[in-house]
Amino acid sequence: MSLNTFGHLFRVTTWGESHGPALGATVDGCPPGVPITAEDLQVWLDKRKPGQNKFTTQRREADEVEILSGVFEGVSTGTPIQLMIRNTDQRSKDYGDIAEKFRPGHADITYWQKYGVRDYRGGGRSSARETAARVAAGGVARAALAVLAPELRITGYMVQMGEKHIDRARFDWGQIGRNPFWVPDAGAVEDWADYLDGLRKAGSSVGAMIEVTAQGAPAGLGAPVYGKLDTDLGAAMLSINAVKGVEIGEGMAAAMLTGEANADEISMGPDGPEFSSNHAGGILGGISTGQDIVVRFAVKPTSSILTPRKTIRRDGTEAEIITKGRHDPCVGIRAVPVGEAMMACVLLDHLLLHRGQVGEGLRGKIG
Amino acid sequence: MSLNTFGHLFRVTTWGESHGPALGATVDGCPPGVPITAEDLQVWLDKRKPGQNKFTTQRREADEVEILSGVFEGVSTGTPIQLMIRNTDQRSKDYGDIAEKFRPGHADITYWQKYGVRDYRGGGRSSARETAARVAAGGVARAALAVLAPELRITGYMVQMGEKHIDRARFDWGQIGRNPFWVPDAGAVEDWADYLDGLRKAGSSVGAMIEVTAQGAPAGLGAPVYGKLDTDLGAAMLSINAVKGVEIGEGMAAAMLTGEANADEISMGPDGPEFSSNHAGGILGGISTGQDIVVRFAVKPTSSILTPRKTIRRDGTEAEIITKGRHDPCVGIRAVPVGEAMMACVLLDHLLLHRGQVGEGLRGKIG
Amino acid sequence: MSLNTFGHLFRVTTWGESHGPALGATVDGCPPGVPITAEDLQVWLDKRKPGQNKFTTQRREADEVEILSGVFEGVSTGTPIQLMIRNTDQRSKDYGDIAEKFRPGHADITYWQKYGVRDYRGGGRSSARETAARVAAGGVARAALAVLAPELRITGYMVQMGEKHIDRARFDWGQIGRNPFWVPDAGAVEDWADYLDGLRKAGSSVGAMIEVTAQGAPAGLGAPVYGKLDTDLGAAMLSINAVKGVEIGEGMAAAMLTGEANADEISMGPDGPEFSSNHAGGILGGISTGQDIVVRFAVKPTSSILTPRKTIRRDGTEAEIITKGRHDPCVGIRAVPVGEAMMACVLLDHLLLHRGQVGEGLRGKIG
Amino acid sequence: MSLNTFGHLFRVTTWGESHGPALGATVDGCPPGVPITAEDLQVWLDKRKPGQNKFTTQRREADEVEILSGVFEGVSTGTPIQLMIRNTDQRSKDYGDIAEKFRPGHADITYWQKYGVRDYRGGGRSSARETAARVAAGGVARAALAVLAPELRITGYMVQMGEKHIDRARFDWGQIGRNPFWVPDAGAVEDWADYLDGLRKAGSSVGAMIEVTAQGAPAGLGAPVYGKLDTDLGAAMLSINAVKGVEIGEGMAAAMLTGEANADEISMGPDGPEFSSNHAGGILGGISTGQDIVVRFAVKPTSSILTPRKTIRRDGTEAEIITKGRHDPCVGIRAVPVGEAMMACVLLDHLLLHRGQVGEGLRGKIG
Repeated sequence: MSLNTFGHLFRVTTWGESHGPALGATVDGCPPGVPITAEDLQVWLDKRKPGQNKFTTQRREADEVEILSGVFEGVSTGTPIQLMIRNTDQRSKDYGDIAEKFRPGHADITYWQKYGVRDYRGGGRSSARETAARVAAGGVARAALAVLAPELRITGYMVQMGEKHIDRARFDWGQIGRNPFWVPDAGAVEDWADYLDGLRKAGSSVGAMIEVTAQGAPAGLGAPVYGKLDTDLGAAMLSINAVKGVEIGEGMAAAMLTGEANADEISMGPDGPEFSSNHAGGILGGISTGQDIVVRFAVKPTSSILTPRKTIRRDGTEAEIITKGRHDPCVGIRAVPVGEAMMACVLLDHLLLHRGQVGEGLRGKIG
Repeated sequence: MSLNTFGHLFRVTTWGESHGPALGATVDGCPPGVPITAEDLQVWLDKRKPGQNKFTTQRREADEVEILSGVFEGVSTGTPIQLMIRNTDQRSKDYGDIAEKFRPGHADITYWQKYGVRDYRGGGRSSARETAARVAAGGVARAALAVLAPELRITGYMVQMGEKHIDRARFDWGQIGRNPFWVPDAGAVEDWADYLDGLRKAGSSVGAMIEVTAQGAPAGLGAPVYGKLDTDLGAAMLSINAVKGVEIGEGMAAAMLTGEANADEISMGPDGPEFSSNHAGGILGGISTGQDIVVRFAVKPTSSILTPRKTIRRDGTEAEIITKGRHDPCVGIRAVPVGEAMMACVLLDHLLLHRGQVGEGLRGKIG
Repeated sequence: MSLNTFGHLFRVTTWGESHGPALGATVDGCPPGVPITAEDLQVWLDKRKPGQNKFTTQRREADEVEILSGVFEGVSTGTPIQLMIRNTDQRSKDYGDIAEKFRPGHADITYWQKYGVRDYRGGGRSSARETAARVAAGGVARAALAVLAPELRITGYMVQMGEKHIDRARFDWGQIGRNPFWVPDAGAVEDWADYLDGLRKAGSSVGAMIEVTAQGAPAGLGAPVYGKLDTDLGAAMLSINAVKGVEIGEGMAAAMLTGEANADEISMGPDGPEFSSNHAGGILGGISTGQDIVVRFAVKPTSSILTPRKTIRRDGTEAEIITKGRHDPCVGIRAVPVGEAMMACVLLDHLLLHRGQVGEGLRGKIG
Repeated sequence: MSLNTFGHLFRVTTWGESHGPALGATVDGCPPGVPITAEDLQVWLDKRKPGQNKFTTQRREADEVEILSGVFEGVSTGTPIQLMIRNTDQRSKDYGDIAEKFRPGHADITYWQKYGVRDYRGGGRSSARETAARVAAGGVARAALAVLAPELRITGYMVQMGEKHIDRARFDWGQIGRNPFWVPDAGAVEDWADYLDGLRKAGSSVGAMIEVTAQGAPAGLGAPVYGKLDTDLGAAMLSINAVKGVEIGEGMAAAMLTGEANADEISMGPDGPEFSSNHAGGILGGISTGQDIVVRFAVKPTSSILTPRKTIRRDGTEAEIITKGRHDPCVGIRAVPVGEAMMACVLLDHLLLHRGQVGEGLRGKIG
């Protein structure tokens, strides 16, 4: 991973600022011959698009993606794919105050400490708007996976928002797309809506936990030590704005378990090895087992709130700040399609690596 | 990050198997002129060395490191430093059973599924012995940091082992080196010892949570999007054997907080900005704030236990397995110096990147 | 170097096809605080722009560059800089014949053999139009070098075109910008013009040799083995379309010399070491000496000519082809600013690497 | 390419100094299941080994390679392969003079200028002894190619030594291994031997030109722009000590040709496309055509000669130096197996990349 590029063979470099003319992604390493259209990508962007309901920022962005290169007559050519999304609703006047003051919890102060210059308009490069470019790139990854691993299904959903948790006993894949929270638990929706509406009206915000599951991923993806599949998935999720933790399978709770409780016993099924449980989250020693790959990440509450917070100005004088712009009361909602996009990018990347590095016909067969 | 290499400018490639002739690390990018001796590195290796008390594996390894290149007349030359540790206690007979059977929770089955060949002796490449090479490389990073950032102090410690947590109210930096668990809480030691001894005698194992803190790190380390300091720290920790989750600052608990609770308010102190709290773990927008950098990671329980577990053989037939070798009842103990080593490598790497990429005299000054 | 990215810390990824909507460069790693405007970059693009005289292709392209990100209020922010150049004169009808036939000497057949799909319009990705994006990126490198190494001067010029060579005895830096061939020899211009005009009228083409010299580069740039300054310069030039060879200093002629003839003897001057000659081209053991850095590369003749050549169609049937489009009789002319741009990118990259990897105050002083 | 690592998926990092305890190569990315033994690698090392006849340095090195990791029961496991060669004949007393004086034409002065510290014993890291590690790594590449591309044959040979050229009309593949110069021209051997013997006795040295040809390489290897096959081959050769130029196919001479002369016309043969000539050296647009891949590189004369040359000491005072050690009168001879090794590494790397990045069954078929 380079500083602004993600991936080994399938490489994504995002670029652009919240209030610049455009943002986008340079996508390198998509195999040739993959059918891709702007419309295909738009489906995923629309999932992340702001302003769709009262629980996301009221900024109006069409988030229309243009494919500038790398696709010819509807299929990828194997050369770099440039994806561009124009910024259309840049109400810069909303952000005037932050040119001088550093918003607590935001990157304002660190960009200044590091670079001595920063694009303060809407957070500039540190804005969550950057994730639109990831979703577009993830759409390219999904298109390639549809050809190379058609049985793979990647689904993200919220499992926690502030004090509210889903009830795993009521888990229903079919519910996920039917509510504004991407929650797999129909019983939770009304309660969560009331809770978040209260926070929203109070000008507050709240954190969230997202889970992304990949079903149907082949065994054998990942590399033993530094290119572990969980390492790359973890890096992918931690690179998303506001993410403060990531876990695979049992995750942080593994610290509490005994070896007996944590072991996923193995038996032989009709189609190959089967496991009695999935504490490992589908990854052993950095390599996929063929089980569901399960990743969770925590998104901190939006730092932009209406309650005044103490801060300093660039000149060192102290001040208070209220962040009045258009913000998400729970930025975790829109992190769901971003987490899916990162999962798609990582799995495609490791699928390509595996194809390249392991000889055909050499792969171990069991039984 | 390449598949077997970690870092951008300070790059570490480890190599070697548990029962091969040797293992080691190729360390590229250490600045020239840094005083380094094998004795300096040995100090860190001795912290991780097995067989030091009854709570770690009884395998006897001197873990003596040899410097084969890159150091001349006691200082680094700027060229690759090769570190080699010979394996001396390779009692292969202990491991005969696992040539055919896949141990649940271990990488046996995934290496086979991926590569169709595996070095089954002691887990081969997937053995935690690999981490000895990381600790040696971390020693080189520490030596360079001692020159470039002399005020920096990196300390790892356990905060949880199975059901046992430290009491943060009794946190004492001075206790960490005085007990076999690297616990910063004198009151916990006896209780934890009894608990782990019981598990050890039962042939069981247990998970753990490690925290690594860097005090005195400069502000401005890290890069905005994919090369975030937290991304690289997270990847570093997730690349360690048996780690299933990682978090920065408030971490997974950030999902439960409101924006008001999570904000680290800023004021102006005599030496620059000060923060009222450190929910962010010292990193905002991927860049260090100058506060303590705080990372935690969860280590799953050792999968090698005496209780029989169900598994399959390479030929697909079903079997039971008891792992009889010499194992750590809580591998998290020895993960403490490994976590420190990874922190050292990441901070040195980003320090070098910052020196290279940001113009001298351009860095933002506040006040 | 990744497959579509050039550089270590200063990283350039170009994208776009000859007849797509746009092409450009994603420039990562420019230090913050560097003054950059589109006008600054346009100066370099205008040097490479087609259609300026009868010796270059008559395709009319404004080659106007837009800066889409990474620059705020006229200075770089340290985040990725996206440069876009719209294609405006895409007369696709000129190229209809080549959808089916592979032009000898062009990449038509190999793109098809590799990818099974190709954008045949004007050569698609393999068109020399890609080099416009390099020149824009080189402009960013020049802007950063103007801040970090203000004494550095990079100049490219032709030293050979077909049978014609410059007379080194008449070498005059001042002549280079005053003729359509970038020739440092006023006495050559008329003769070369007649020669090329003859070839042009005959629908033929001819090769060329370009030399790029960097004056005022500091000593100490480059790395010992694989990241040698000459390795990276060589790779930079060989990555330009139609380049078939590259040499440093004495170059291929070094094969003919004895050790006595080739040695650049050293003496001590008022400002440091001085050399009696520069057979080494300013680089010893991969590291710059402080002398002029001298690189030459050969550009093959444009493969698009009016004389019919034998070829095959995609279906394997044999055919003849005449390439009628708008082409450069000597593509080497426009390779001059491209070579300069690549030199700028490589020197900035190694300057940043040197700053990052070598401790301040540690660098060797002589005398 | 990192600074001390070569390759994309098949990655070689060499390490070690001329007079340190050992040197070697960390080889990452070899596919699993490849039969490899130390004996196989030794064959290639013996080709490069010094002291075999009067035309190479009289330093006596067994150059015995040990495989420390990554190979189990005679086959590669897919994990990093560590190759180590111990230095046995380190007569440091030969080199005492150069601790203070910088040898003209050597890297002594630039290492000092860059790093402020250098291992002066035998040139330290800049010694051509480093190439032994490349040859060992190339042996691994050859072993993998024997499995993945069994029809591929890589052969290096000298085509020029000082004033002496081979006669292409007498080119005979069978002669190459039968003379000390790896010359494919039986008629040249005696003349070249007399010529070089004269130079050797005079304490002089001479440059050389090496050609490396790969027969039977598949079409489709390489990537369009920065990862061109010729770019990577060029970088590979330019990274070898003392190489000052590299060319593909027609090479530097392409500058003299017209488009008509340079075109390799295409016809349809029984097994696919055929070409009337090979000016392109087997590569078009960075991608292999299926023809022979032909690379040439120039090696400068050994800078260590008996004639006194002017130089300076570290303290800036002027001096004369005679390099008395054991040296090669034509270091180009031993560059032949090194060039072969680099060709093998590059071709394997691009073969793996092609497998990973291009969909099976998607590759273009002609006819």
